[in-house]
Amino acid sequence: MAGSSFGECLKITTFGESHGEAVGVIVDGVTPGVELHERDIQIQMDRRKPGQSAVTSPRNEYDIVHIVSGIYEGKTTGTPLTVILYNKDMRPEAYDDIRESFRPGHADYTYLNKYGLRDHRGSGRASGRETAGRVAAGAIARKLLERRGVQVVAYTKEIGGIACRTFDESEIERNPVRACDPEAAAKMVDKVVQLASVGDSCGGIVECVVRGVAPGIGEPVFDKLDAELAKAMLSIGAVKGIEFGAGFAAAAMQGSEHNDAMSADGFLTNHAGGIAGGISTGQPIVFRIAVKPTSSISVPQHTVRVDGEERIIETRGRHDPCICPRIVPVVEAMACLVVEDMYKRQAALRN
Amino acid sequence: MAGSSFGECLKITTFGESHGEAVGVIVDGVTPGVELHERDIQIQMDRRKPGQSAVTSPRNEYDIVHIVSGIYEGKTTGTPLTVILYNKDMRPEAYDDIRESFRPGHADYTYLNKYGLRDHRGSGRASGRETAGRVAAGAIARKLLERRGVQVVAYTKEIGGIACRTFDESEIERNPVRACDPEAAAKMVDKVVQLASVGDSCGGIVECVVRGVAPGIGEPVFDKLDAELAKAMLSIGAVKGIEFGAGFAAAAMQGSEHNDAMSADGFLTNHAGGIAGGISTGQPIVFRIAVKPTSSISVPQHTVRVDGEERIIETRGRHDPCICPRIVPVVEAMACLVVEDMYKRQAALRN
Amino acid sequence: MAGSSFGECLKITTFGESHGEAVGVIVDGVTPGVELHERDIQIQMDRRKPGQSAVTSPRNEYDIVHIVSGIYEGKTTGTPLTVILYNKDMRPEAYDDIRESFRPGHADYTYLNKYGLRDHRGSGRASGRETAGRVAAGAIARKLLERRGVQVVAYTKEIGGIACRTFDESEIERNPVRACDPEAAAKMVDKVVQLASVGDSCGGIVECVVRGVAPGIGEPVFDKLDAELAKAMLSIGAVKGIEFGAGFAAAAMQGSEHNDAMSADGFLTNHAGGIAGGISTGQPIVFRIAVKPTSSISVPQHTVRVDGEERIIETRGRHDPCICPRIVPVVEAMACLVVEDMYKRQAALRN
Amino acid sequence: MAGSSFGECLKITTFGESHGEAVGVIVDGVTPGVELHERDIQIQMDRRKPGQSAVTSPRNEYDIVHIVSGIYEGKTTGTPLTVILYNKDMRPEAYDDIRESFRPGHADYTYLNKYGLRDHRGSGRASGRETAGRVAAGAIARKLLERRGVQVVAYTKEIGGIACRTFDESEIERNPVRACDPEAAAKMVDKVVQLASVGDSCGGIVECVVRGVAPGIGEPVFDKLDAELAKAMLSIGAVKGIEFGAGFAAAAMQGSEHNDAMSADGFLTNHAGGIAGGISTGQPIVFRIAVKPTSSISVPQHTVRVDGEERIIETRGRHDPCICPRIVPVVEAMACLVVEDMYKRQAALRN
Repeated sequence: MAGSSFGECLKITTFGESHGEAVGVIVDGVTPGVELHERDIQIQMDRRKPGQSAVTSPRNEYDIVHIVSGIYEGKTTGTPLTVILYNKDMRPEAYDDIRESFRPGHADYTYLNKYGLRDHRGSGRASGRETAGRVAAGAIARKLLERRGVQVVAYTKEIGGIACRTFDESEIERNPVRACDPEAAAKMVDKVVQLASVGDSCGGIVECVVRGVAPGIGEPVFDKLDAELAKAMLSIGAVKGIEFGAGFAAAAMQGSEHNDAMSADGFLTNHAGGIAGGISTGQPIVFRIAVKPTSSISVPQHTVRVDGEERIIETRGRHDPCICPRIVPVVEAMACLVVEDMYKRQAALRN
Repeated sequence: MAGSSFGECLKITTFGESHGEAVGVIVDGVTPGVELHERDIQIQMDRRKPGQSAVTSPRNEYDIVHIVSGIYEGKTTGTPLTVILYNKDMRPEAYDDIRESFRPGHADYTYLNKYGLRDHRGSGRASGRETAGRVAAGAIARKLLERRGVQVVAYTKEIGGIACRTFDESEIERNPVRACDPEAAAKMVDKVVQLASVGDSCGGIVECVVRGVAPGIGEPVFDKLDAELAKAMLSIGAVKGIEFGAGFAAAAMQGSEHNDAMSADGFLTNHAGGIAGGISTGQPIVFRIAVKPTSSISVPQHTVRVDGEERIIETRGRHDPCICPRIVPVVEAMACLVVEDMYKRQAALRN
Repeated sequence: MAGSSFGECLKITTFGESHGEAVGVIVDGVTPGVELHERDIQIQMDRRKPGQSAVTSPRNEYDIVHIVSGIYEGKTTGTPLTVILYNKDMRPEAYDDIRESFRPGHADYTYLNKYGLRDHRGSGRASGRETAGRVAAGAIARKLLERRGVQVVAYTKEIGGIACRTFDESEIERNPVRACDPEAAAKMVDKVVQLASVGDSCGGIVECVVRGVAPGIGEPVFDKLDAELAKAMLSIGAVKGIEFGAGFAAAAMQGSEHNDAMSADGFLTNHAGGIAGGISTGQPIVFRIAVKPTSSISVPQHTVRVDGEERIIETRGRHDPCICPRIVPVVEAMACLVVEDMYKRQAALRN
Repeated sequence: MAGSSFGECLKITTFGESHGEAVGVIVDGVTPGVELHERDIQIQMDRRKPGQSAVTSPRNEYDIVHIVSGIYEGKTTGTPLTVILYNKDMRPEAYDDIRESFRPGHADYTYLNKYGLRDHRGSGRASGRETAGRVAAGAIARKLLERRGVQVVAYTKEIGGIACRTFDESEIERNPVRACDPEAAAKMVDKVVQLASVGDSCGGIVECVVRGVAPGIGEPVFDKLDAELAKAMLSIGAVKGIEFGAGFAAAAMQGSEHNDAMSADGFLTNHAGGIAGGISTGQPIVFRIAVKPTSSISVPQHTVRVDGEERIIETRGRHDPCICPRIVPVVEAMACLVVEDMYKRQAALRN
């Protein structure tokens, strides 16, 4: 109800503010008896952390995974699995200037209107830092999906108007923007570094592919697999849109072109993006998300104070000039959570 | 869990198959004491019905709204409000040919994999007919929103590559494609009629604007207002993507350009689409959805039988060559349900 | 949220007022492919109907089961299964007298306070008639449980202070009070008939036994099997208490006496009532509920009008002098729903 | 779904095993802007802690409340409020003996069957220690209820067959069994101490009164106020039954006696226990719970090992000979959570 939980059978609840004592997550409904170690989670946390390269924030927010419950002798117990990440390198004083002002592009104004008060330090719950708990939970879901033969991979497809033209999965983790095309990646890095140098930021497009999902996964009507994925992705702060398969291009297609015909060997195309009627077809699930340019920039901007007076604001601090590379593990985490949850829902229906 | 319910405080559950006895909806959590008449719902049902013009299906599926519970002496009682729409003009025999085959673009293959059996007549629950219950429920939510001063309007923005260039709200209900630009509308109609004549179909883009939402509505983190709207829209069968405000265009923008600056008179732009951090800003909420071309076409297509044997299929029957005009009231209904639900969630939090 | 739904994986939503057009239920999450006929449900409806004997209400509320969705060619489809029971023999005018007064023991006063208005005819949703939908849903859950080898049986254990001293399951459906001891049953009938003759009513105790549940069913912590059964039973209008196994007698026992010791052949006793830590032990699940005397009596009672003025009320109409025999199928229905739901939840956890 | 969450609008999720690193709770949906300090919670934790007297466990499990999120500058923010209680004085080696055996009265056997493995140390999640998180959450709910004028008080009514004959609320916290009658309390203490000296335990009855609830709180049908309270209470490990108002005594009463008549000054009696049709009447809400004798006793008992071999077990360790005094704050906590949640649900319905 209050929005900090996600999932039905595999349910996560995140907690913690950007500049509070800790952030973290409880994962309830984990299959018992599955081997799980802190390093399984740490690997994913390290992909999300800032300071990985010139294109990410230099904050030293290094997250050490701490499992507090739900593991016994190296295996999941089936009880709530809690991961805590204590906040380090907090500099709340860096935010004193913005205590009484609304930063453009941020949730300052809306949080104040919703709650009647706000924790102004680093956006509180609206901070990207909240996603640390999601990535931890996603790493657990990924372990459960491995047993089903499901793989989830996301990557940057476009940044600041520069699009990937080739796809080489092995390149993704080798370049700082996590793009699937090394040539495009180099241009993207140049563009981001240049924008960062003038205190500005840019957006991009991230694509995600889920392979190995059996046909028949997903619920009909309201909890369609694509509907749940859409909710999951739009729940990530910087995401402003999502499309499946042919996506918005389908708007200009004809049925005879868009329909995925079948042969004895299976589907001949995948315009649907691996989902029909909200249920997996067995083909790869493919979707893309639109990532807005990071709101925190040091270019002067017009805004107002809490008392309504106009002012010019220059957000200082250490921020990501483009969030795409760091959003990639968050997208994967949320996709893992949705798909594993849907497998469990299917088990409930059929058993 | 099994996917036929939507909403938290204002919760709807739809039921019924395309060619079963009836479809309908239960709405639980309706504010008691609100005047509501069957005609309030009928008006919206009539906008969704087939056979409205040359660009919609000629099926005579005229839906007469029947309220079974939850109203007493012309007012809502606060108990489950049930609307039943008895099916008429069913021709299940029209579907005998496809009993043993999968129609490309339809959910036949995925439903069979999910359930182990399927009601092949008119797609069962995967049929667009299921949305009749949503439109009925949305009409009730609309009545509740009127008391809050909220208006929801959707319209066709693009069909088959033809885009609206002007916006005149008063034109929307005057043209058969429900486009906001009468000139574009005329071209769209021509295109749709031409495609229908060769048994093909086309897609489009529908835009929705929600005005009058107070700032502060929406939940943080997972149940963001845009996340819930995205889920709601992607739960509509033909929808393949959604974007808010600047949407996918934001991917190529810079922060200094995309951030909505503020003055003493409010926001200077609305690139965010009226939502920041998942919570309403008080500006109009604006989103667009990608609508795929209707799957039911009579052009011959390659497919397989249930036993795996290849065949050529030609889907006969009376179908919509472009579903955009009939999806408009469904989009509005789902938007009404999401926004009213979020208002109630806010009441729960603050009271 | 608004209270008309129950269950997680197998979820029911009831609708309809006592004197509205119909009552009914939607059951979502039904295992697909299970044979189900209207007569499977009708059998249970007939056990709940009034007018079965001198000890039940003479109302002719004969419920003909009408399945509207979710069945195809004699099998469940896995989509929402809707059962409608049209109301007959309504005499709303019989309630005109009580329109402006609160009947003692009824929910008139509380409904008016909650909703700000009320459907005064026959208690609206607070009527026992609402349970018709539950019994229909329970009959479906019973079919699913049969496949698991689970049997659910409830019976009257005590009425008006007269307790059963023997247990013969085959006697339960042979006497009008559904008691498990034919001698006690005869005395109970005399007592109830005598009270009815003077316009009064009496309470009783109903016991329920669930056999064949595998060990390990039920959730830990909040959704314990006994916690869910307790909620289910207390949600039945006339129920004022519940106890499991030794129940309230355990309050006066010692640990050495109450603990169920184990041998190689299993448990030596069943003071726990088949549930330990909220999870089934594999022994029979046993609980008892306290049923209050029917509120509708024709003995004159002190009450007030809606405007606060005092008056004497004599509730006329055709009511049950003791609701125990008719509550038995409702108790069984709710127990079936809880246990089947818990099996599905276990499937989700382990798969 | 997996059972570790409770509540709809005010939702709690507990985590942590008895002998893990920590236990705790996340509370989501807290009204923002309410003053809350760690001491508000610590006061209630101290009432639950062991070692308070000769009748409670001598374990030194002193819980220091640690708020990790959801508070800013002394006020609730409306975001998830997390309380962690680090475990101290753990002696897992004390449990080595029972690793391979099932303790009678405990959830060892059922947890193993449910999960396929178990954390044998101190019952893991089935331990009473899990309730520490509930008490912390309840303290927060209590703060919210204070603003509504609602008070919740529970007390021991009976222990080992010794019943309170008088009611003096000021005496409750003055005697180690938290009884409402000081004379009975003295006899209870003697009885408990005597049983403890021979390694045995005993049960009791706890009563709870909720005052100041406005009429109209509670949902109809399945989520009745009494149904939710019943679920909440039966979710406490040692509870085997619950009754409201006249409770099981109602089974032997007549309608003319049980019905609560009304006068211009309000209800003349309160046999219903403050709830009619699942909704509050405005009178005090009164219920009693049956508490079983503590399962952990050092009297030799028959049991089996995990491999099925019979053995005699003597549970050593430091346990409570009667859990009633320590269950009192847990009962209050759960009652606070249910009532506050219901107030919020009512706000959602009417706003």
